[in-house]
Amino acid sequence: MAEVQAEEMASLDINSEGANAKDEDFVDPWNVQSSSATGVDYAKLIVRFGCTAIDQVLIDRIKSLTGKDPHWFLTRGIFFSHREMHKILNLYEQKKPFYLYTGRGPSSEAMHVGHLIPFLFTKWLQETFDVPLVIQMTDDEKYLWKDITMEEVRRVALENVKDIISLGFDMEKTFIFCDFDYVGQCPEFHRTIVKIQKHVTFNQVKGIFGFGNSDSIGKIAFPAVQAAPSFSSSFPLIFNGKKDVPCLIPCAIDQDPYFRMTRDVAPRIDFQKPALLHSVFFPALQGANSKMSASEPNSSIFLTDTPKQIKDKINKYAFSGGQATVEEHREKGGDCDVDISYQYLKFFLEDDERLEKIRQQDYTSGELLTGFLKKELITILQTLIGDIQARRKTVTDDMAKAFMTPRKLKFDF
Amino acid sequence: MAEVQAEEMASLDINSEGANAKDEDFVDPWNVQSSSATGVDYAKLIVRFGCTAIDQVLIDRIKSLTGKDPHWFLTRGIFFSHREMHKILNLYEQKKPFYLYTGRGPSSEAMHVGHLIPFLFTKWLQETFDVPLVIQMTDDEKYLWKDITMEEVRRVALENVKDIISLGFDMEKTFIFCDFDYVGQCPEFHRTIVKIQKHVTFNQVKGIFGFGNSDSIGKIAFPAVQAAPSFSSSFPLIFNGKKDVPCLIPCAIDQDPYFRMTRDVAPRIDFQKPALLHSVFFPALQGANSKMSASEPNSSIFLTDTPKQIKDKINKYAFSGGQATVEEHREKGGDCDVDISYQYLKFFLEDDERLEKIRQQDYTSGELLTGFLKKELITILQTLIGDIQARRKTVTDDMAKAFMTPRKLKFDF
Repeated sequence: MAEVQAEEMASLDINSEGANAKDEDFVDPWNVQSSSATGVDYAKLIVRFGCTAIDQVLIDRIKSLTGKDPHWFLTRGIFFSHREMHKILNLYEQKKPFYLYTGRGPSSEAMHVGHLIPFLFTKWLQETFDVPLVIQMTDDEKYLWKDITMEEVRRVALENVKDIISLGFDMEKTFIFCDFDYVGQCPEFHRTIVKIQKHVTFNQVKGIFGFGNSDSIGKIAFPAVQAAPSFSSSFPLIFNGKKDVPCLIPCAIDQDPYFRMTRDVAPRIDFQKPALLHSVFFPALQGANSKMSASEPNSSIFLTDTPKQIKDKINKYAFSGGQATVEEHREKGGDCDVDISYQYLKFFLEDDERLEKIRQQDYTSGELLTGFLKKELITILQTLIGDIQARRKTVTDDMAKAFMTPRKLKFDF
Repeated sequence: MAEVQAEEMASLDINSEGANAKDEDFVDPWNVQSSSATGVDYAKLIVRFGCTAIDQVLIDRIKSLTGKDPHWFLTRGIFFSHREMHKILNLYEQKKPFYLYTGRGPSSEAMHVGHLIPFLFTKWLQETFDVPLVIQMTDDEKYLWKDITMEEVRRVALENVKDIISLGFDMEKTFIFCDFDYVGQCPEFHRTIVKIQKHVTFNQVKGIFGFGNSDSIGKIAFPAVQAAPSFSSSFPLIFNGKKDVPCLIPCAIDQDPYFRMTRDVAPRIDFQKPALLHSVFFPALQGANSKMSASEPNSSIFLTDTPKQIKDKINKYAFSGGQATVEEHREKGGDCDVDISYQYLKFFLEDDERLEKIRQQDYTSGELLTGFLKKELITILQTLIGDIQARRKTVTDDMAKAFMTPRKLKFDF
């Protein structure tokens, strides 16, 4: 235990060691940079971050314990890394409780399909393990980092909450909260934040997040706000005041710095370290080394896009792994590793056999062109987004308010 | 106006300029150091802090506007400095609203008589101007700075609240709050804190408060918590959502750094700069250059002391301005400037004529010895503390809870 902790502490400050070196990707909560067309080297990231690869043993154990087929995000390496997931499975095996925590920084634009990944997987985890879920909207983070008013960030956060509700979360098992509301509603959440803030120094957040002397004291203090929901003390109504219910956090790997800090501070304040499941990044339409941005409408597919927009964007912008000419393509075959349509299908086409057939038989062989992959992807995304848009229309202000009301959930503690 | 702000900004970082120089006193919210037996040189402090001396013009104006004799804390220079008090008097003249804000960092021991000064004066201000009063208990500050549990600091804060209530504040006009409660009860207070935190950098709090890289992010973020009650947006129930009601803060001069920061940030977040009234420090029994500490019971008189303890401590420890022998004393006279009994009488003996007689006729002349001053002081403090103790017995948990309930006060906005 002591060894594990020493190892984690040594690896808290990641990018200052690694990112200056050539050929290293840069990954923190605000920037992800990779020079490779296949994107970030996740195997290297696992070593640098000191986390553990999700292997077949873990996937098999999930299957045998739950009796359910593991989500394709697990089997396809979309969730590729973890911290202490076996501890969570031990709890499940012993019928002991844990809970799920994920979140989102509400952006000024509509959510895109990449933003769905942690939520879709979290929903599957909740349905599979039947545990409480808390979802944090860090409206305070967006306010602190961006040139935006508090009113605007709160308005956008509420829209994002409705988007998330549209994915079909169970209101009786899920609490969604915005920091600008919940801190002021729950003294125990505030006290958990201050407890963390007492035990983290400026040097530590400087090392982990790269903060400098010109950064606002709001930014400097913020990591404790994202850390706090990892501890059940932040949710006295859900956990009946219990402060030691363990937490599992599914998130993209760029959020790991927050939780390295959280895991470092936990034993010093007598709390449980949260476990984690990390996903890869969702690539931009233009390719894995291009930057996907909510302010660049053509860099991704948004939840507000029409069927025609989805079709046009994919046809026009989705980076192709095909060859320069049809003749060359027939001869050499397409490259699934860089073809964005294929990459997106890996995220959204559930049928394993069909995906494998597309990869091996159809595309890599050169038999079919990128246009075929695009057509397949267009249909899938039109259906997925159409369904979400239909549900979104039924999400009222009252329903959002109900999800966001601090309350006991359908679990006894 | 622009000039005033530039001047204040230039003077934000005080001690780094001044305190390293010899013969300069060091004053910040956690340390007050003076090498002189007469204590801190307040005239120099006014220049260094960029505030304004309270002069006869201001005192006369208070008298003419309110029709009340100014409190002896004003006429005797105990409250000796201000920022924009004339602006507050203009408001009063125009029958426009303002409010009072003061506070206390709840210590682990009983309050001593020095702690009463800002509260006694604030009570007089409230009765004279008939305005709302908010009192902040910074339990979070004590938790962040000291090796103390959250439970203990909250228990002590409640005891201190009861001490303060014992001074006779009007429940219908006064709201007392502990940060660990109120932040979690009032989203608008939290949002005001974060708004301030967005607009203050680590460099600024480093300059003003001397924070370093090894300080916790809790300490670094805390100044915004003490700043926030300066803005009426923090009390939506009291001010009916109005964000521009001006604030007057009576406090000891060591708290000024917080409010220099507050005044600097106010125009950048469209809030009113608070006005201030500054008091001198209350000297330790052992003399003005000795450190008064709540953990050293003989360094002051506490609200929990018995009449006998008051008598014994003053007789044994109160630093004397008398001469070495009775003969010498009769010849040269006593020195009121260093005699602690006289200094305490300046704080607690209301009768101006009597105080002047003691100073001039009795003591400075050498006619009477320090023992006479001590006897006078013992009677006054026994009465003052006896009265507070009697009222303290009537302060119930329910009464404290009522004072601490967020609510509208007896003022319409």
